[in-house]
Amino acid sequence: MSRAKAQTKQSSYISRDSSRSYFLAVFVSMLLVFVICSLTETLPSFQNMISTTGADTCNGEPPAVNRTHDPKEATFYDEPELTYTLGKTIEDWDKKRKSWLHLHPSFAAGADTRILIVTGSQPSPCKNPIGDHLLLRCFKNKADYSRIHGYDIFYNTACLDPKLCNVWAKVALIRAAMVAHPEAEWIWWMDSDAVFTDMYFKVPLQRYKQHNLVVPGWPDMVYEKKSWVSLNTGSFFTRNCQWSLDFLDVWARMSPRSPDYKFWSETLMSTLSDKMFPGADEQSSLVYLLLTEKKKWGDKIYLENQYDLSAYWVGVVGKLIKFTRTEADAGKNLPLLRRRRAEVVSESVGEVREKYLENNTAGEGKRPFITHFTGCQPCSGNHDPSYVGNTCWDAMERTLNYADNQVLRNLGFVHRDISHGSYVSPLAFDFPSEVLQRKKSGEEYNR
Amino acid sequence: MSRAKAQTKQSSYISRDSSRSYFLAVFVSMLLVFVICSLTETLPSFQNMISTTGADTCNGEPPAVNRTHDPKEATFYDEPELTYTLGKTIEDWDKKRKSWLHLHPSFAAGADTRILIVTGSQPSPCKNPIGDHLLLRCFKNKADYSRIHGYDIFYNTACLDPKLCNVWAKVALIRAAMVAHPEAEWIWWMDSDAVFTDMYFKVPLQRYKQHNLVVPGWPDMVYEKKSWVSLNTGSFFTRNCQWSLDFLDVWARMSPRSPDYKFWSETLMSTLSDKMFPGADEQSSLVYLLLTEKKKWGDKIYLENQYDLSAYWVGVVGKLIKFTRTEADAGKNLPLLRRRRAEVVSESVGEVREKYLENNTAGEGKRPFITHFTGCQPCSGNHDPSYVGNTCWDAMERTLNYADNQVLRNLGFVHRDISHGSYVSPLAFDFPSEVLQRKKSGEEYNR
Repeated sequence: MSRAKAQTKQSSYISRDSSRSYFLAVFVSMLLVFVICSLTETLPSFQNMISTTGADTCNGEPPAVNRTHDPKEATFYDEPELTYTLGKTIEDWDKKRKSWLHLHPSFAAGADTRILIVTGSQPSPCKNPIGDHLLLRCFKNKADYSRIHGYDIFYNTACLDPKLCNVWAKVALIRAAMVAHPEAEWIWWMDSDAVFTDMYFKVPLQRYKQHNLVVPGWPDMVYEKKSWVSLNTGSFFTRNCQWSLDFLDVWARMSPRSPDYKFWSETLMSTLSDKMFPGADEQSSLVYLLLTEKKKWGDKIYLENQYDLSAYWVGVVGKLIKFTRTEADAGKNLPLLRRRRAEVVSESVGEVREKYLENNTAGEGKRPFITHFTGCQPCSGNHDPSYVGNTCWDAMERTLNYADNQVLRNLGFVHRDISHGSYVSPLAFDFPSEVLQRKKSGEEYNR
Repeated sequence: MSRAKAQTKQSSYISRDSSRSYFLAVFVSMLLVFVICSLTETLPSFQNMISTTGADTCNGEPPAVNRTHDPKEATFYDEPELTYTLGKTIEDWDKKRKSWLHLHPSFAAGADTRILIVTGSQPSPCKNPIGDHLLLRCFKNKADYSRIHGYDIFYNTACLDPKLCNVWAKVALIRAAMVAHPEAEWIWWMDSDAVFTDMYFKVPLQRYKQHNLVVPGWPDMVYEKKSWVSLNTGSFFTRNCQWSLDFLDVWARMSPRSPDYKFWSETLMSTLSDKMFPGADEQSSLVYLLLTEKKKWGDKIYLENQYDLSAYWVGVVGKLIKFTRTEADAGKNLPLLRRRRAEVVSESVGEVREKYLENNTAGEGKRPFITHFTGCQPCSGNHDPSYVGNTCWDAMERTLNYADNQVLRNLGFVHRDISHGSYVSPLAFDFPSEVLQRKKSGEEYNR
């Protein structure tokens, strides 16, 4: 303010007779601004000027987050009545979150695409002897994906609501995570038995600008078939906003928290065409809310089926070798894809790879983004009886090693046999180039 | 360049008679530069101008890392002979890593304090029925610490070297991690059974400017007692530099990779005063290298004993309740410490807390940074027979819940009873303020 005043004061001194050279000098000054600012690679942009968050940018990149800056100004955290638990409404959340971001500009920059992945499992050991081992490796898989893309991940083993220590646990956790993580625009829930099988695919956030909850699903199966499997709550993400807070509370009203739980259980059984077991589960309840309150909630819920946010494992496991070949072909044809690089920039070839696969496989033989081991129940071990013997566990072992190969590649190793994860071998330089393939198959020597 | 020319050309037009107003205008221009640049909070700094890495800074903060920028210029990754495995020397690593950073300026900024935590466990399920459950929660604990401080973490379940699928596995993993993560200055190994028990303590990196390997240890026990437990390799970090690459190879020459393994096994048994079991383990081998090649390696190895980089669990578990009281007292006396805040800025009160504890507990009753469950062998279950019954498992349960309470606090919850992790309760606002304490003990009502 005082600077602006000083500037005006200076200006007033300028006499009419020197106006010509003055205007020239002003032109010089504009050049100076341009030259000096471009020296710092931070030419002021209109966006910077109107920044409502106070966040600055460098090179179009946001600044690194500043974890040590927490100003003394009051935020929503200082409101005694504001809770992390379901059932107690938070008012003006969007405004409160925005003002927190304003006080923490380094987090405001880039906030609109910031994702927190939340997942978890029961507090006690699994009944299934290999259950916890599978959960450990499923967590490793999610931690790998998070690290590669720079997302934060939180694994919860505590039961936040005594009445929701079941499939509903995620709803209580998402509610708490939204309050604890105002820096995150999206809270992405992943079931413990959901596995990233394409470590380099990124969710197209720009597609969801008008939506607050993104869940894998099919509109016709929801609204026509009224099927409880018309969508899948094993992997979905919700925007950190007032709408979501309100929706979580409405959703949780059908959970065991509700005095009307029995009523909802019966209602779901009678409303949904194919729900075979009693109890109001969180997935059936979401389908029901879409069916009965579409006007109120449906417009903001995106049913995603253009990529696999939760592919059914039975259809995936048999194709893992095929997927490996597809990726090897891509690597043979595009040197850029087989070039070795640091894991932190492995994301850089994601789009090139996606385009190549689109043009050369038409989606055929393209690995799914996420594979969900629905019905396997790795922790209890009580899998769907239709999955005979060790089908589930063998499938999980193969899928986890398949995914791990995408991570190990950047560490210089590979599981030669994805059915046994124990041993890995060093990856040859420039693998899988044609030359190498010929060498391996002996062609070089047969000539 | 052409801009500069244009500028000179303009300047030449300015006539002598208008020099006064010209200089005023130049003054105006300087103000303009200042005003506009400060609007974008990026007043050009000398540091920006001379930046050798090409990285710009914003407000003194480095820019956020750019994961999509991997220029086509050749790096060490393009050298066919460069491997991720032990035994094959990499030459000029410091130069190679520096030039990679130069090509990736957003990673160069802040590189000197960047830490990658590496840990892992065996590829197959544990023999101990609750082994994998404990490993899962030990990993969760490390993932929590990494998220809170913005460190990357990699959990490995593959055996990178068939001869090092044992205590030596870490050496092969660190070697690969150094090559795969040129963005990281420090690779921090953590045994699977090491648990962060102070989630807010940060390692004082500035203390290690002259060192390349930091390991918990005591010089007198190394050089006088020649004890195999004079240091602990359960938690140590090594600088991503040529020295470390060379040292890892020398270290691994005493491992089962070496044809002289038997010789080293016998040599360690005869050299170290208290080594009871045969086999050259990685910890005894490090002690031996300090004893025999101090001149060559010792100067760069920092034996840290000013804080607990690997506290022996037996001395810790009995004090957990005392530690909880100490922290509660700190919270009662310092409103800043009990103020609710976003997890991402929970680091901000770390120093204040450290100072308070120093002045008020003189280190007494201060929780250790890391607690190591040496001898418990959670995965095999074959713990030291001197630990009767479930001592180890109960101790791990309590310690993991104690640590989890520091994480859950920022999620609005608390384990009231750390001996049973299953249930948690919402944390009262402003806990643990005096008023609340009185209310809880009923004093308010007795008046």
